[in-house]
Order: sequence, then structure tokens, then C-alpha cells
Amino acid sequence: MKKVAVIMGSKSDLPIVRPAADTLASFGVPCEVKILSAHRTPEEAGAFARGAADAGFGALIAAAGKAAHLAGALAAQTVLPVVGIPIKSSTLDGLDALLSTVQMPSGVPVATVAIDGAANAALLAIQILALADETLNQQLLAYKRDMAENVRHANEEFF
Amino acid sequence: MKKVAVIMGSKSDLPIVRPAADTLASFGVPCEVKILSAHRTPEEAGAFARGAADAGFGALIAAAGKAAHLAGALAAQTVLPVVGIPIKSSTLDGLDALLSTVQMPSGVPVATVAIDGAANAALLAIQILALADETLNQQLLAYKRDMAENVRHANEEFF
Amino acid sequence: MKKVAVIMGSKSDLPIVRPAADTLASFGVPCEVKILSAHRTPEEAGAFARGAADAGFGALIAAAGKAAHLAGALAAQTVLPVVGIPIKSSTLDGLDALLSTVQMPSGVPVATVAIDGAANAALLAIQILALADETLNQQLLAYKRDMAENVRHANEEFF
Amino acid sequence: MKKVAVIMGSKSDLPIVRPAADTLASFGVPCEVKILSAHRTPEEAGAFARGAADAGFGALIAAAGKAAHLAGALAAQTVLPVVGIPIKSSTLDGLDALLSTVQMPSGVPVATVAIDGAANAALLAIQILALADETLNQQLLAYKRDMAENVRHANEEFF
Amino acid sequence: MKKVAVIMGSKSDLPIVRPAADTLASFGVPCEVKILSAHRTPEEAGAFARGAADAGFGALIAAAGKAAHLAGALAAQTVLPVVGIPIKSSTLDGLDALLSTVQMPSGVPVATVAIDGAANAALLAIQILALADETLNQQLLAYKRDMAENVRHANEEFF
Amino acid sequence: MKKVAVIMGSKSDLPIVRPAADTLASFGVPCEVKILSAHRTPEEAGAFARGAADAGFGALIAAAGKAAHLAGALAAQTVLPVVGIPIKSSTLDGLDALLSTVQMPSGVPVATVAIDGAANAALLAIQILALADETLNQQLLAYKRDMAENVRHANEEFF
Amino acid sequence: MKKVAVIMGSKSDLPIVRPAADTLASFGVPCEVKILSAHRTPEEAGAFARGAADAGFGALIAAAGKAAHLAGALAAQTVLPVVGIPIKSSTLDGLDALLSTVQMPSGVPVATVAIDGAANAALLAIQILALADETLNQQLLAYKRDMAENVRHANEEFF
Amino acid sequence: MKKVAVIMGSKSDLPIVRPAADTLASFGVPCEVKILSAHRTPEEAGAFARGAADAGFGALIAAAGKAAHLAGALAAQTVLPVVGIPIKSSTLDGLDALLSTVQMPSGVPVATVAIDGAANAALLAIQILALADETLNQQLLAYKRDMAENVRHANEEFF
Repeated sequence: MKKVAVIMGSKSDLPIVRPAADTLASFGVPCEVKILSAHRTPEEAGAFARGAADAGFGALIAAAGKAAHLAGALAAQTVLPVVGIPIKSSTLDGLDALLSTVQMPSGVPVATVAIDGAANAALLAIQILALADETLNQQLLAYKRDMAENVRHANEEFF
Repeated sequence: MKKVAVIMGSKSDLPIVRPAADTLASFGVPCEVKILSAHRTPEEAGAFARGAADAGFGALIAAAGKAAHLAGALAAQTVLPVVGIPIKSSTLDGLDALLSTVQMPSGVPVATVAIDGAANAALLAIQILALADETLNQQLLAYKRDMAENVRHANEEFF
Repeated sequence: MKKVAVIMGSKSDLPIVRPAADTLASFGVPCEVKILSAHRTPEEAGAFARGAADAGFGALIAAAGKAAHLAGALAAQTVLPVVGIPIKSSTLDGLDALLSTVQMPSGVPVATVAIDGAANAALLAIQILALADETLNQQLLAYKRDMAENVRHANEEFF
Repeated sequence: MKKVAVIMGSKSDLPIVRPAADTLASFGVPCEVKILSAHRTPEEAGAFARGAADAGFGALIAAAGKAAHLAGALAAQTVLPVVGIPIKSSTLDGLDALLSTVQMPSGVPVATVAIDGAANAALLAIQILALADETLNQQLLAYKRDMAENVRHANEEFF
Repeated sequence: MKKVAVIMGSKSDLPIVRPAADTLASFGVPCEVKILSAHRTPEEAGAFARGAADAGFGALIAAAGKAAHLAGALAAQTVLPVVGIPIKSSTLDGLDALLSTVQMPSGVPVATVAIDGAANAALLAIQILALADETLNQQLLAYKRDMAENVRHANEEFF
Repeated sequence: MKKVAVIMGSKSDLPIVRPAADTLASFGVPCEVKILSAHRTPEEAGAFARGAADAGFGALIAAAGKAAHLAGALAAQTVLPVVGIPIKSSTLDGLDALLSTVQMPSGVPVATVAIDGAANAALLAIQILALADETLNQQLLAYKRDMAENVRHANEEFF
Repeated sequence: MKKVAVIMGSKSDLPIVRPAADTLASFGVPCEVKILSAHRTPEEAGAFARGAADAGFGALIAAAGKAAHLAGALAAQTVLPVVGIPIKSSTLDGLDALLSTVQMPSGVPVATVAIDGAANAALLAIQILALADETLNQQLLAYKRDMAENVRHANEEFF
Repeated sequence: MKKVAVIMGSKSDLPIVRPAADTLASFGVPCEVKILSAHRTPEEAGAFARGAADAGFGALIAAAGKAAHLAGALAAQTVLPVVGIPIKSSTLDGLDALLSTVQMPSGVPVATVAIDGAANAALLAIQILALADETLNQQLLAYKRDMAENVRHANEEFF
């Protein structure tokens, strides 16, 4: 099975990013977590992205805050799907990271999820891998059924 | 090869959405273009999404403006990757569609691209399909080289 | 008397939504509180909306955060008036939910109230039902007089 | 049948507001169109709202731009449902009118529709009146079916 | 000397508004503090504004949050200068109140100060009264010198 | 009678600012129009503000776009009331000028009117001068009556 | 004398960027204009930045729109001062490019100027070079005097 | 070596501004910290800027919140590079200060860094001085290497 990389721009992003790794683990998808910065280690980040397909990755997840260039910088160097997680920082309520991640120029898309949406980034990567993996596909269908079931239980419990 | 659906909420969105179909065609990816509205034809939209995997689709692209629910409504009913294109309408400069598309709740991701970013939506779908299709992968690598080459030519031409 | 449904997208919305139920109760309007998600239980949500008129509901109140599609998803399936409460979540200060709720396309209105404005959502539903219920109408007029009286008392108390 | 008032703050708002009157007319709902300004004719506006129920109105629609106080000023003086249409003016892309209309304090709701959403304001008023008028209700159900049908036709025509 | 009215829309606004009253008191300007709501007591608010000039007021200060109509509603009923203080509430960081206060239509100005800027609202009212009161004018000049002096002292103290 | 200064940051602002001068003229208030830039002629701007009271001015109106510092720079150097007009420029729809004008720090207020609200700026200055000028006061009351009358005529004409 | 590089992300940015080159030329500062894209030619962009100091550049100016990563991508690879020009594109009025350019993480600053502020970007680069070049410094002082003089002439001409 | 001035508008800004002074100190760049207000001490601020070059300064750093005019007011009076730090205050999340600092009119640039980005402001000043100081240049290159090294260590430590 192809691996998913979960990359964050700074170690301080780990609490927000962890649900991505946890979600991948709960589906049994192999994942590698790394810190790579578009601004502090641009060459490592570029080299990682260029080599990611050959290293067995099927999708890259990149999380960054403020002028969040990480997802775009990786997408510039690979044709693997890159999922971007904008991270809310201490000012502007996440709007800066959202716009810096999603408003990519024509030719280099980033699949952007909600601000601080790490679990969804992982689910999106799993949906991508599941296109060629029927077991994963069945797990996703079960996950969707469980979500619905949880809503039904909450109704029974509360009302 | 799996097909890609390009779905728009209203026929008036066609000029913005067309580059998605054109890009898919230029890569030889089969695509179906449809109008389905989360608000005017909610049951058709839901039924389409539920049946999309069995119908041979590998990814859905959904474009809508204002309170752009279309991509999310499709994602609610399938585990195929859904790519959302927020469309700028006559007020708020696209911000309403962007937030309505990208800020999805945990469990149901939408892979959001830039406002009016139809070509990138298609490229993202192609990147997803290319994970299991080496020919597409080579086309994407060539496309990336061509983009770089075009920048180099523009330098020679202008300066 | 017709009933009012108070629907929230997630059980975590209950503290914000509770004033809607409390306000309806204080006017003696029968109400049912439910959790239904546009994204996690789309078919239950649609089925509920389609059957709501026959089930004796006169108005639906729907509360959701982020890409808040719930009110619009219900309005797509009923011609009962749907009141939308945008809920502030951890990023963007409620702007995402507001725009996702209010910017509905032509043909499918949602009666949107202020962010986190649950009490006003209930009052709006009561105003709607009161058009055909003189007792409710008198209660609303008394409520309005009491509000004014409270402002007068506050002036006496403070100054 | 109860009447609907369509009120605008300035005669220059007429092109945006006209679809509200047209939609009401197409459903056969009697309507009166008026110019009343929260800031230039505050007493007439207040007097109109206080007398609206006795004058046979069942809902008020109010459209205004910029610091759009009209809907709120009417809602302050009646317990009839008041529908607010925020109008986009030459700066800020309608955001000012939207926030001035929707962010009402507890106790005095305004049922806000999309920026420049005059047709939806009328539909919302019709939905409110239809609760006590089965003919209107049937018209709304037919309108909803027609919208869906139009989407289906557009699919046949375009693709 | 003419009086200044300090009016707030709700008693919960008192902590934000108090610096206005304190500033007026420190300049010896007579002031009356009142709660008047554009939405809960619209007729009292209107009557107060219409009678304010005859009651000896020279300027009105109005503070309100969310869809902050209070200052505009007063300005609609008097030709006295009305100073508006937008108050930050629990959502949108004060932007709603700012736009609702400042974006007044042509013909009815509100002199808007910063969000939560109660002290400045008082200073502005004092500047207005000082045009016809040389003692106040000298106090303002002294206040300005003191502000500059405080900056100089802070430099000596810290560095 | 005291004069009013109408100051703009650039000659390109003249079309937006002209209604201020026209409105002052229509009330018979003497006015001087000047170009003074907080950034290009900071010393002239400061000198003008410091000498404005002695030169017979009763209020200053300052219009500027983008990082609109002009009104604040004048207010820093005088205790005359300063009215600020934020001007919309080619980006950000006037929001930059609005925030740069209105969000003044404690101690130095600017009486801010709507974006591009030149006529209102003049009216506000006239209201300020009218406190000590009964003729002006009567003109303002007549102006207010005329505005209301115009609304009434528009109703007769249109409906 | 050190050179200044004027770099844009796309040839379509040239009309906005040209005033930077023109301003540098008018001060006699040697400049090179290039198209380099953070996303389409990331390696050329990186290589250019890494070699820029040795190639005789004293400052880099980078202009880009949307998720404007270009200035940050260059700053990641050089310790030369990098001046960023956010460019307004067809949606969001330049806010996306502004936040993507200015909100850089700690350690890698970009000297950001106004949206579409190409002339100012050049002036900032000239100010930087002028620290070590007395002729340039004198030109800047003359430029500043000319700006003030132009304001004075405009006053004479218009009023 | 030329000095850098670190100027803040209010002593309450010191905790945010301190990293600028600390960063300058860590590079051995002489710095002076001052409180100067564009609004409370405009003449001192202007005089300081006019004399700064002769006093041995090579760059000015100015930090202010709300309608943050300080950096622009200094830039109006000197041709030294002025670095602006927008400071987040209690409302609007820093957006007001950012726009007031960065949106400078043509002719008077401010090199704006991120909201609350004091360390980056210092680094930018150091980069400017380093153009004529090879020792500083080497320190900056070492600093850049250290940042990259820290990212590498964080990877080893965490994963």
C-alpha cells in the first residue's frame, strides 16, 4: 500500500496535525510524519517532494499557518496529490493560512481542507488511496455508516 | 480508465467551469458534465453521488457560488474524492463560496481549489487518477515540464 | 397548534441552540429537538424535511457551524419556512457559518438570524405561527412590552 | 389573503427590489411597494410598522444598503415577520448591509436573505403566508417542482 | 454649558461605555447616562432624540453592538451631532457594529469613533462643545500637552 | 461664522470630495479646499492643523484613501473636531481607508463618516457649527424636512 | 552599484510591475526583470535567489498574486532584503496576495508594500541601496522635495 | 556600524516589540528603543525621523496598533528604510494595523512585516545593514543555517 506523508511547517503545529496521523493509523494506512519548512528548509522540502513518488508515497498532507506556503511548495515539485491544512495562528483567525493555501495559481493545485481540519485531510488522502484499494474503500463506507449511526445514537441519548 | 464528473449548480456557471472539462479532455480523461443543484434538485444530486462509484467515476468535481453547498452535498453521499470549485458571484468577491466549500465538518472532506479555479480542479482529479495510471502520470510530468518551459520562453521573449 | 423543529448539526451545538427550545417552551409552542447532519445523515435530514409539513411542523429551525449547510439542505426539501442559525466555531468568528447559511441561491430562501442567535430564531418561528394564532400574537405583543419595560427598569436601577 | 409590504430605503433600490414584487405578483399575493427610510422618514416608517398588522399585512419585506437599519427599525415596531434584503452598494460589496441587517439583538429578529436576494425574500414571505393558505402551499410545491424540472431541461439542452 | 447624553443600547454595555462618562466628568462637562434601545424602545429613543436639543444637550453619544442601529436611529431624529461607539460583541470582533454605525446613508451622518472607543467619543463631544467654550478649549489643549508629556515620561522611565 | 476646511490627500480625490464643498456652499458655510498630504507634505499638514483654530476654522474635514492617515495626522495637532472621509481606492473596497481613519488610539478622536461619504462629512461639520448658530440650525431642520418630503414625493411618483 | 532584481510570477503581471522597473531606471539603478514562479519554476527561483548576492544584486523585488508565495520563496534562499508586491487578481480584491506575502513566519521576513504598489517597492529598494550610496541618497531627498512641491503646485492650480 | 531605532507608539506595546530589540542585540547591532506617538507626540516623532540619518541610524523599526500611523509618519520624514510592525489590539485581530501600515500611498513606502512580527522586523533591518557589512552578512548566513538545523533536530527528536 502506498504511504501518506504528514508534513508540518513547525513542531509547534503538532497538536493540530496529530489527528491526521491518528486517522491514517486507524485506517491502517502507513504514514510518515515530518517537519519540513518552505521557508527554513526549502531545499529539503523540495527534495522530499521530488522524491516522494519514488519513495512510495501516494499523497502528501501539508499543514502550515500564517503565509502558509508549505503545501504549495510541495505541490510545485511533485504530481502527487497534495492536501493542504491551513492552521490558525495568533492573528487573523486562520484566514491568512486559508488564502495562502487554497488560492493556488493555475497549474499547481492544492486540495485544501478546513482551517485546522487535520482529520479531514487524512480522510481525503485515504479516499484517494481507496480508489485502488477495495479494503480501504470498504473501511471508508463503514466509517460513513458509523458517523450516521453516531448521530442517531446522540438523538436517542439526548432527546 | 475511471471517469470524472464535472458538476455545476447552475447553467450560468458554465463559462467558469468549462476549463475543467477542457483540461480533462486534453489529458484524455473521460468526463461527464452535468447540472445538479444541492438546493433545486437535492435528490438527483444525492442519487448521483451515491451511484457515482458504481457508474465508473473516480472523482467528482463540483462548482457552485454563494452558499456553495454542492460539493459538500455530494461528499455527504460518496467516499469518492470530491473536488470543490468556489465560484465568485455578484457580491462578496467569492469569499462566501470559498468558505461554504472549504470549511467542511470533520468526517466529510471536500478538496477545495481556488475561487474560479476550474483548471486546477481538473488537474487535481487527474493527479488522483494518475496514482493508478502510469500514462496519466507521465502526462502530468510532461505538463509540469511544459509549464516551466513556458516561463523560460516568456523570459526570453520579454527581456 | 403547529410544532416547531429545532435541529442542530452536532450534539456539541446544544448549548448554543438551547435558548431556541427554551423560548419556544416559554411561549407554549410545542417543539421537537433533533440532531440531523447535512453531511453525516443527509438522507435522514432530507426525509425529515420532506415529511415535516405532514408531521405537523409549521417551521424548522436549523443551527450549524462552519460550512453550515443544514438549513439550506432542509429548505431544499420543504416549502415550510426554514430559519437558519449560523454557529460560531473555533475559527473565522462565525463568518463562515453566516455566509454559508444566508447566501442561498434564488428559489430556496433561508430566514437567517444573527450568529449564535438561537432565541431570535425561536421568536421568528413564533411570529410566523402567530399569523394564524391570536393567542400567540398577544403573547408576542406582551413580550415586546416587557422588553421595553425592562429597559425602563434598567434606567431606574442604574442611573 | 394577507398582503405583503415591499419597502425600500431609497428609490434607487428599485431595480434590485423589483423581483420581490414580481415574485409576489406571480403567486397572486397582494403586495404594496413603498419607500420608507429608517433615517430620512423614521416616524413614517415606525407608524407604518405599528399599523401594518391592522392594515392587513402578513409580512414585511425591507431592503436597504450600507448601514441597513430599515428591516430592524420595522421589526422594532411590529410582531409581524420582517424579511430583510441587504443591498450591495458602491463599497464593501454588500458586507455592510448584510451585517447591519442580520446581526440583530436578542428579542427583535429579522429574517435575512442573501445580499440582493429580492426574489428569495418574496418566496420566504409566501412560505410564511402559505402556512394558512393551502392554495399558496400548492403553488410553492409546483414552483419547487418547476425549478427541478428546469435543471433537468438544462442538462438535456447543454449536454 | 450644554450637556452631553451618553446612551447605550443595553445595560451590559456599561463597562465599555463608562470611560465616556468618566472623561466627560473629568472635563466638568455635565452628562446624562441612559439606556435606550433602537430595537426594544424605539419610540422612547426617537422621542429622546427629538427633544434633546430643547433639553439642553449639545451632543449625543450612542454605543451599541452587533447591528448597531442606535446612533443612526438617534441621528435620524435630531440635528445635534451624534457620536457613535461601535461595541465589540461575542462574534465578528466588532466589525458588524462598526459597519452598522459608520456606513450611514447620505443626509444623516454619525460621527463614528473606534470600536469600544468610549473615551474618544467623549473627547470628540468635548471638542464640539469647546468651539463655543474657551475654558473647555484650554482644558483640551492642556489634555493634549499632558498626553505628550506622558509619552516623554514613559521614555525616561523605561529606557 | 467659522470656516470649514476640506482637505484631501491627493488631487485625484477631488471628484469624491467635491460634494463636501458643495454641501457647505449650499448652507452658506465658508469653506477652504486644500490638498495636504500626511505623507508627502507632513510639515505643511501639521502646521495647517496647529494654526487652524487661529485662522478661523471651526472644523476640519479630511479625505484620504488606502492607509488613510490624513485625518489622524491633523487631529494630532489640533483640538478642533476633525471629520474623516475614508476614500475607496483600487483595492480592498475602502476597508483599508475606513480602518485607518476610524481606529484612532485613545486621546485623539477622528469623527469618521461612511466610505466616500463626503456630503455627510459636510453635514456633520455644519451640525457642529450650528450648535452656536441658530440660522444654521434652522437650515438643518429644513434640510431634514426636505429629505423626508422627497421620500414622500418619490412614493407618490413611483407607486 | 548593486543591481536590483524585479521578479514576477507570471508575464501577465507585467503591467502592474512595470512601474518598479521604471522607477529604478529613473534613479539610474541597474535592474534586471525576470519571470520566475515559485510554483512553476521552483528550482530556477531557488537557484536565482541563492546566487543573487554573488551576481551583484543588493535587493530583490518579487510580485505575485493569489497565494503569492514568490517573495517568501526567494527570501527562504537568500539573506538579501526581499521586497514583496502583492498583486490584486480577479477575486478577493488583493487580500489573498497581501496575507500570503506579509504574514511570513519568524526568521524569514519579506518587506511587503501595498497591493499593486510597484513604485513603492522600487523606492524601498533604492532607500536600502542608498544607505551606502550618497548620490542615491541625494536623489531620494530630491524626490521627496519634488513630491511636496507637486502637492503645493496642485493647490495653486486647483484652488 | 549604523544603529537601528525601535520605536513603539505606546509603552503597552513593549512585550510585543521586545523581540526586535533582543534580535538586534543578539547580532550585535546597536539599537535605541523609544516611545514616540504619531498622534500624541507628532512633532517629536517627525523631528526624530528627520534627524535619524544624521544621528547615525541606518533603519527605523516602528510598531503600532489600530490605525497604525507611526511607521508611515516616520517614513514621511526620512529616506531611511522604515520597517513597520502592525500590532494586534483588542478588536479586529490585527487587520486594522496591518492595512494602516502596509497600504501606503505611492512615494512613501513602509517595509511591512507580519502582525506582531517584531523579530522579523529586526532581521529585515539587519539584512539591510548587512549589505554593507560582511560580518553581519556572515551572521545572517549562519542564522539561516541554524534555523534549518533546528528543523532537522526537531525531526530527529520527535519522530
